[in-house]
Amino acid sequence: MSGLVIDGIASLVTNDPGSGRGPLGVVEDAALVVQDGRVAWAGPRTRLPEGAGGERYDAGGRAVIPGFVDSHAHLVFAGDRAPEFEARMSGRPYTAGGIRTTVAATREASDDALRANVRRLVAEALRSGTTTIECKSGYGLTVADEARSLRVAGEHTSEVTYLGAHVVPPEFAGDSDAYAELVAGAMLDACAPHARWIDVFCDRGAFDGDQTRAILTAGRQRGLVPRVHAGQLGPGPGVRIAVELGAASADHLTHLSDADVEALAGGGTVATLLPGAEFSTRSPYPDARRLIDAGATVALAADCNPGSSYTTSIPFCVALAVRDMRMTPDEAVWSATMGGARALRRSDVGHLAPGARADIVLLDAPSHVHLSYRPGVPLVARVWKDGRPVAAAV
Amino acid sequence: MSGLVIDGIASLVTNDPGSGRGPLGVVEDAALVVQDGRVAWAGPRTRLPEGAGGERYDAGGRAVIPGFVDSHAHLVFAGDRAPEFEARMSGRPYTAGGIRTTVAATREASDDALRANVRRLVAEALRSGTTTIECKSGYGLTVADEARSLRVAGEHTSEVTYLGAHVVPPEFAGDSDAYAELVAGAMLDACAPHARWIDVFCDRGAFDGDQTRAILTAGRQRGLVPRVHAGQLGPGPGVRIAVELGAASADHLTHLSDADVEALAGGGTVATLLPGAEFSTRSPYPDARRLIDAGATVALAADCNPGSSYTTSIPFCVALAVRDMRMTPDEAVWSATMGGARALRRSDVGHLAPGARADIVLLDAPSHVHLSYRPGVPLVARVWKDGRPVAAAV
Ligand SMILES: [Zn+2]
Ligand SMILES: [Zn+2]
Repeated sequence: MSGLVIDGIASLVTNDPGSGRGPLGVVEDAALVVQDGRVAWAGPRTRLPEGAGGERYDAGGRAVIPGFVDSHAHLVFAGDRAPEFEARMSGRPYTAGGIRTTVAATREASDDALRANVRRLVAEALRSGTTTIECKSGYGLTVADEARSLRVAGEHTSEVTYLGAHVVPPEFAGDSDAYAELVAGAMLDACAPHARWIDVFCDRGAFDGDQTRAILTAGRQRGLVPRVHAGQLGPGPGVRIAVELGAASADHLTHLSDADVEALAGGGTVATLLPGAEFSTRSPYPDARRLIDAGATVALAADCNPGSSYTTSIPFCVALAVRDMRMTPDEAVWSATMGGARALRRSDVGHLAPGARADIVLLDAPSHVHLSYRPGVPLVARVWKDGRPVAAAV
Repeated sequence: MSGLVIDGIASLVTNDPGSGRGPLGVVEDAALVVQDGRVAWAGPRTRLPEGAGGERYDAGGRAVIPGFVDSHAHLVFAGDRAPEFEARMSGRPYTAGGIRTTVAATREASDDALRANVRRLVAEALRSGTTTIECKSGYGLTVADEARSLRVAGEHTSEVTYLGAHVVPPEFAGDSDAYAELVAGAMLDACAPHARWIDVFCDRGAFDGDQTRAILTAGRQRGLVPRVHAGQLGPGPGVRIAVELGAASADHLTHLSDADVEALAGGGTVATLLPGAEFSTRSPYPDARRLIDAGATVALAADCNPGSSYTTSIPFCVALAVRDMRMTPDEAVWSATMGGARALRRSDVGHLAPGARADIVLLDAPSHVHLSYRPGVPLVARVWKDGRPVAAAV
């Protein structure tokens, strides 16, 4: 693959404190050299290495940041739940099935229909600057439907998460233990070969601490690395179990005890916040400042799903994180890039230091601060993945 | 101009209760016929008039809505205030000049620089579906700079508002009466020929009731129709004066007395809400439900300006209106289209009944509910203004 030199960058976020100012490693009046799909050099334009070869792209005084790393997404589903959303936001009662509606539609959908849905949402996310995206199962909830969900997810991303323990399906109503045993048994056997991660929704009305521990432990024995949905709907043991079992990430975290915060601050488990879910359910936002000030590593993700957060837009989540979770504009951008990479235990994405994947976003703005300063404005002008242009808007 | 037939519309918002269901006049499985830049026919596809001629466009099972009417924007300025935004959101003190920074930059800017800024923002708004946009002066604050601001605005929109009374400029510090006299005197003489509307920022630290009444009354005598910035920072007489003087709109309305609500409910003055400003200043949102339930006509606008709401995105404002102002998805879409048209006293835009301007937005979604259900996602796939395609994204 030939090289690429991006020149005329007003402000470059490298996330490499060695390369530039502050934790974001910001370089002003910068250039970036890509070779064979990787960052070969990043720094001040005036020090651009002589002989840096390849195609030249003039950023025209705009900002460049690493592609967003969205570490939490539910993309394998059919149908949508617009009527449920409309009723909830209008204060009207709505008796239909919530997540069960999506489970029923997903089970009935063809592989091709599921594939098309994932493809559509991955492409949409890419246009908004997301170059790495995780994808969970969790709307199949049978051995066959979870396995095919993971196969379909794996066609679009390498960050595939087995979430058989999303909700207890209707056919196991009243016997969640039997379902949890299936998830940790035959379903895991069928799913483990297709996933990198295993996740459990450990919350009120979903799976309890014992079930969560059993499922994640079984997954670990099959080589899957745990992640946990914890503390979205109420306090619970999710964070404690996540940290105990070495989970890569505990996600949602609206309800946190002091011990939870301490565990996240001290451990290797990333605290992943999903403000899109609080936005679309009119719930209180998690306390990002408490986590950051305690020293936890915070990631931002979009939680794209048809029930509680039907957005793929990380720029939107960045704006919410600043406005409603009191993160600084710098913290929010870091959490949506490096934070996401940490939550996926990836060292090749989320930054633009030499050696990183050339996953690059050009903003139609002079700096990354504009992602929160200009909320709602589609600022992603161009995206490169592995050094190749994949989406061009403006 | 030749005709256009848009076919395959899953859901069409006409805002014409005679044409379809509810206040939005929704037609499912619809078609739309455009002739000479106007809507010639709108209704169920199965009743599409035979011989409806012209180019055929297949909406592909997506939704069509009227173009947004953004009745409140400050686009004639130079520079931006990202450092001030960043400091405010990070809780850091920031002593620089606020709006005075923009006034200084605007005065120093060339006509061409101002023109380029307005052109850029109008184009950006258009890509997000805004086909009619108002534009105020208010960063010149000298006779010459206000007049040229209006001339520049008038190159891009017919909805031009003279807002000499935006803030008291530094050279009049301590003598706001003298500045108010200038605004109602020589500045008005120079500006009236270039504007349709006159606006005053009637609030704490800006202009008081007497000044507001004097300026608006002088403007009316020159044929300008009043609009008022009222109740953003604190309670005040702005709404009362607006209704008394027959203003087309009172805008912001975070602080409202019972008498204010009653006046808005009974009068011809539209209540225009600007949630982007509350978002970007972390302020409480206005009480939309109180206004709607009292019977006031509510408009939504983006208030695009570099200080307190640097967004052009009406879809973003619609999502905020639903989430944070408890408007229903239908109410929010109505307010961003018909509401805006009412606030600008326009009967030719904001709806798609026969005779309306063919200002049309195609959404990459099956219904208008997705504007709030899918927050942050750029859903505007295509825009026609006066029947001509002007922006195509997806
Ligand atoms: Zn989730
Ligand atoms: Zn304003």
